[in-house]
Amino acid sequence: MRRIGIVTSGGDAPGMNAAIRAIARLAAWSGMEVIGFERGWSGVIRNEYVLLEPRAVSGILHLGGTILKTSRCPEFKTREGVEKAARSIAEDDLDALIVIGGDGSIRGAHELSKLTDAAIIALPASIDNDVYGTDETIGFDTAVNTALTEINKIRDTAVSLERTFIVEVMGRNRGFLASEIGLTAGAEVILVPEIPYNEEVILERLRRDAAKGKRSSIIVIAEGVGKTRELAEAIERKVGVEVRISILGYVQRGGSPTARSRHLASVFAEKAIELLLDGERSRVVGIQGGRITSVSLAEACSNQKPLNLEILKLAEKLAI
Amino acid sequence: MRRIGIVTSGGDAPGMNAAIRAIARLAAWSGMEVIGFERGWSGVIRNEYVLLEPRAVSGILHLGGTILKTSRCPEFKTREGVEKAARSIAEDDLDALIVIGGDGSIRGAHELSKLTDAAIIALPASIDNDVYGTDETIGFDTAVNTALTEINKIRDTAVSLERTFIVEVMGRNRGFLASEIGLTAGAEVILVPEIPYNEEVILERLRRDAAKGKRSSIIVIAEGVGKTRELAEAIERKVGVEVRISILGYVQRGGSPTARSRHLASVFAEKAIELLLDGERSRVVGIQGGRITSVSLAEACSNQKPLNLEILKLAEKLAI
Amino acid sequence: MRRIGIVTSGGDAPGMNAAIRAIARLAAWSGMEVIGFERGWSGVIRNEYVLLEPRAVSGILHLGGTILKTSRCPEFKTREGVEKAARSIAEDDLDALIVIGGDGSIRGAHELSKLTDAAIIALPASIDNDVYGTDETIGFDTAVNTALTEINKIRDTAVSLERTFIVEVMGRNRGFLASEIGLTAGAEVILVPEIPYNEEVILERLRRDAAKGKRSSIIVIAEGVGKTRELAEAIERKVGVEVRISILGYVQRGGSPTARSRHLASVFAEKAIELLLDGERSRVVGIQGGRITSVSLAEACSNQKPLNLEILKLAEKLAI
Amino acid sequence: MRRIGIVTSGGDAPGMNAAIRAIARLAAWSGMEVIGFERGWSGVIRNEYVLLEPRAVSGILHLGGTILKTSRCPEFKTREGVEKAARSIAEDDLDALIVIGGDGSIRGAHELSKLTDAAIIALPASIDNDVYGTDETIGFDTAVNTALTEINKIRDTAVSLERTFIVEVMGRNRGFLASEIGLTAGAEVILVPEIPYNEEVILERLRRDAAKGKRSSIIVIAEGVGKTRELAEAIERKVGVEVRISILGYVQRGGSPTARSRHLASVFAEKAIELLLDGERSRVVGIQGGRITSVSLAEACSNQKPLNLEILKLAEKLAI
Repeated sequence: MRRIGIVTSGGDAPGMNAAIRAIARLAAWSGMEVIGFERGWSGVIRNEYVLLEPRAVSGILHLGGTILKTSRCPEFKTREGVEKAARSIAEDDLDALIVIGGDGSIRGAHELSKLTDAAIIALPASIDNDVYGTDETIGFDTAVNTALTEINKIRDTAVSLERTFIVEVMGRNRGFLASEIGLTAGAEVILVPEIPYNEEVILERLRRDAAKGKRSSIIVIAEGVGKTRELAEAIERKVGVEVRISILGYVQRGGSPTARSRHLASVFAEKAIELLLDGERSRVVGIQGGRITSVSLAEACSNQKPLNLEILKLAEKLAI
Repeated sequence: MRRIGIVTSGGDAPGMNAAIRAIARLAAWSGMEVIGFERGWSGVIRNEYVLLEPRAVSGILHLGGTILKTSRCPEFKTREGVEKAARSIAEDDLDALIVIGGDGSIRGAHELSKLTDAAIIALPASIDNDVYGTDETIGFDTAVNTALTEINKIRDTAVSLERTFIVEVMGRNRGFLASEIGLTAGAEVILVPEIPYNEEVILERLRRDAAKGKRSSIIVIAEGVGKTRELAEAIERKVGVEVRISILGYVQRGGSPTARSRHLASVFAEKAIELLLDGERSRVVGIQGGRITSVSLAEACSNQKPLNLEILKLAEKLAI
Repeated sequence: MRRIGIVTSGGDAPGMNAAIRAIARLAAWSGMEVIGFERGWSGVIRNEYVLLEPRAVSGILHLGGTILKTSRCPEFKTREGVEKAARSIAEDDLDALIVIGGDGSIRGAHELSKLTDAAIIALPASIDNDVYGTDETIGFDTAVNTALTEINKIRDTAVSLERTFIVEVMGRNRGFLASEIGLTAGAEVILVPEIPYNEEVILERLRRDAAKGKRSSIIVIAEGVGKTRELAEAIERKVGVEVRISILGYVQRGGSPTARSRHLASVFAEKAIELLLDGERSRVVGIQGGRITSVSLAEACSNQKPLNLEILKLAEKLAI
Repeated sequence: MRRIGIVTSGGDAPGMNAAIRAIARLAAWSGMEVIGFERGWSGVIRNEYVLLEPRAVSGILHLGGTILKTSRCPEFKTREGVEKAARSIAEDDLDALIVIGGDGSIRGAHELSKLTDAAIIALPASIDNDVYGTDETIGFDTAVNTALTEINKIRDTAVSLERTFIVEVMGRNRGFLASEIGLTAGAEVILVPEIPYNEEVILERLRRDAAKGKRSSIIVIAEGVGKTRELAEAIERKVGVEVRISILGYVQRGGSPTARSRHLASVFAEKAIELLLDGERSRVVGIQGGRITSVSLAEACSNQKPLNLEILKLAEKLAI
């Protein structure tokens, strides 16, 4: 291992910079030279990169986003795109590429690993937490906390105006964010894509709350459920309480990473370098049961991480 | 002055609780008894209130929302509604009512003042800052700072993904929030209801920026402009850059009041009590040129506060 | 199990209210009545309590501190004190007492469990994280994040004035806070009570940094090391750089609990109720390797939780 | 005006970067070239600077500290130092120097203005707010809000443990910070250097509070009063309540500037450029009664800004 590359790909997540910093510095301790591709896979394909010396990653630990920038890169979804990326790796004489990103990026990493001799190691970084092989991704904890701060503010108005608020959080296919936010914000109702939408159950719950004199509720819904407006109208019409919608949106992606997101970035980076030194070739780093582990890229891509439904049951009991 | 009432009305604003606390305590120093009507005008109409002794308002200074709750009250827009409110004031033997709220609440206060002998004093509290007779309302500074925090987070993604973000802020009719947020967030474009929407000018600006290599922009738009989605599509189609929309929404209403919102709440409350002791009957408290002043309810209701267009010109120059 | 008590004891920790809420509500689901003793052990001794019905714990999930209040109670360190507490439990006809607190509180719980037939279950809540049997206590994650926010601000001045800052964090006996804060804040030096203080090593490190042109450093030191001022003087005198001291202090105890602190509070509470329903009598709830578990009070009191020294090694490598 | 310099001097204040950005960009609109001296007066003396083109100040608006860095510079307090600075200005062919800093920096600017033909314009930026000729300095509002956030957290513990907290805030000679923080945090006692310290009055106040059942208080004290520890001991001994001290320290200097600090930075910069274009030579920009104005450097240096004692009286009435 003399020369390795880093790429941040897909949506940005808080802690990506902490991971870049950790990789660049730990690799330097092992005598490796590190380059950083710019703008995600697109930068790998076009072979656009910067040198990442240890001092070049100063002052970025606490910053959201990624100094390497990222992009959605349709070209990398084609065979030609992946081949071009493999060619860049060969041209740059890289022994390994470390991919920092979410579910889609890891699938890309898997495809690339089939066409290159370089080791490909993925670090799961995504606010969605939807990566198989790790209990938590870099950035997830930050996004949950950001949403809590927002909901704290929304609750001021919900309580003062005695309104029901539907708070739509990110999560196109998975409910990890919605369920964790819902539990920790004390939401009365939590809706995730994994559980079929049943309007009548929700309305019944809200009617019971209203009957008990509860005058303001928070409903947390993953965007992937796709029923935000429909539900708002149903509640107003059938329960007779006023509803407001708040879509948290891109705010959830940003902000300074929490301690936990920075911690994961640091120990994941350490593990990635270890795997490289051990001669591993295509792994996804992760944390499982409190231990830093890894699974193969193939395994990560062929399995779906289950949602912990116990969280939802507990949240429901807690929001009496 | 032996007995006075307080009501918080319309949309909630951070600092309303600071104002309630200040009035309750300063009134007590002058030997007045204070009651707080609940749920805005609706509580006045139904004569629902709580006693506000000095210790009853402990621990609320830093809370968003309003402990007296608020509501939109269509009944108060009718002659009958206002008469009922006047009757409550008489029944409760109130010498004065202090109304804490925005533009609409002050209009309500004005109507009420015509039908009651009690003094009616208004304290402008609104995130919209659209009250004539005061340079700034309680809550405005908090809402601007909340929006800045949000935009800081959005900028992480804007820069990392090199996208243009349209950030829609509150302001149905007026651009006070949008212009102040735009200036202090360093927005490239600021759109307010007071200035006719001119798409071509905006696109030209963005084209120039793109030509200079500027790859991410923030556009702040007041919701009242009503062109958010239209503009996003126009930019994508005609400038050829990717656009994302973020609607800040109700988050702007909430949160712990800033020092400035708390300060205004305190000195406005002091002025209100002074006006009452001076025998004034229908005034709106305000700050003008750094001095705490007041105008008559009639004057506040028959004038429109001008938007400072210099702010927009300065903002444009600063976002080169 | 028909009737149980809750007490929060020792220093307050963010998430104690989340734990109170979760216990009160989950116990109600199992048909238990719940009372909350006020002011820690002192309230148990004097048998001062309030009834905690499910709706009585509304609106407290996001609040720092503890609505039950807490205190240091020297009387409870005597045999008489513990006996009085046991008598209160008998008088109140309690089947169980749930103790929410840190290391000292758990020792107290253990003593009490020897003198009462009621089940005693402890929930570890402490910003210090120094409880055996759990990887993490309620409140620890919040305190770490609070410190990060502070250090972010201090770094502005450190960088602008090119100063070295010594940041003293809490931790009289243990370095859990200091090591986690140091790692995630990117501190150049981390000093914990578990490792003998070696001034020369620190000075050598700072000299090397200065020689490399690094002009501002952050040193995180646990208060228990007791060398804050001594070190500042040594650096100024022997390395020749200006040093400033910042003692974070009580700020670390407060604030709205993070998602993780709230999450732990919720699942710890769930486990506590489960243990009670299973007939367990004297346990400390915890999280170990990602699983919610428990150890006996005796075991928790006779073992010391080890500090993960790997964190310090990693932090040192990362702060090149 | 073809070429101007900027220097940030003294302690850093949030919003200095906003001011640098605004000056660099507004000057460019008027066709001026702008250089930024590094490390305060020391950089002027050594003639060390960077070119500040409009795009060079991108992405700094929201950052605390100063990208130009700052320093305390004893050499500039000597005649030789000021002469060297004047020489640098001549060598660099500067028509003007804009000095961003507090009271000390403005005195320095005044001395320099006597030895150079270049125009010297000062922008008051200081968390202390102790500059004559302006109601508010850049950075003051941020520092007050930072302190409020800290005190919010401290209050969690103060209330939970029923302790009295003495919070020491910055302010070596003046009480602007302490009085504004005290008012807006709802402090029970506020101590400033401008008012002689009278222990008995404070103790009497706390005794009365204790008699009324008030169990936790916040005392805000400016560091310049110099009685923090003494007072703590007196309260414990003579009032019999437990006291904790929290020294906010350097945290108050840092952090992202608030909207108001950024706003002032922008309009002060605009005024500075205007003054230069109008041929003014030695002025301090300021805001007075809501209007952007200026006074001569001589006037600013020969007068002392009065503390508004009404604020203290109001605060005392509010903290019943």
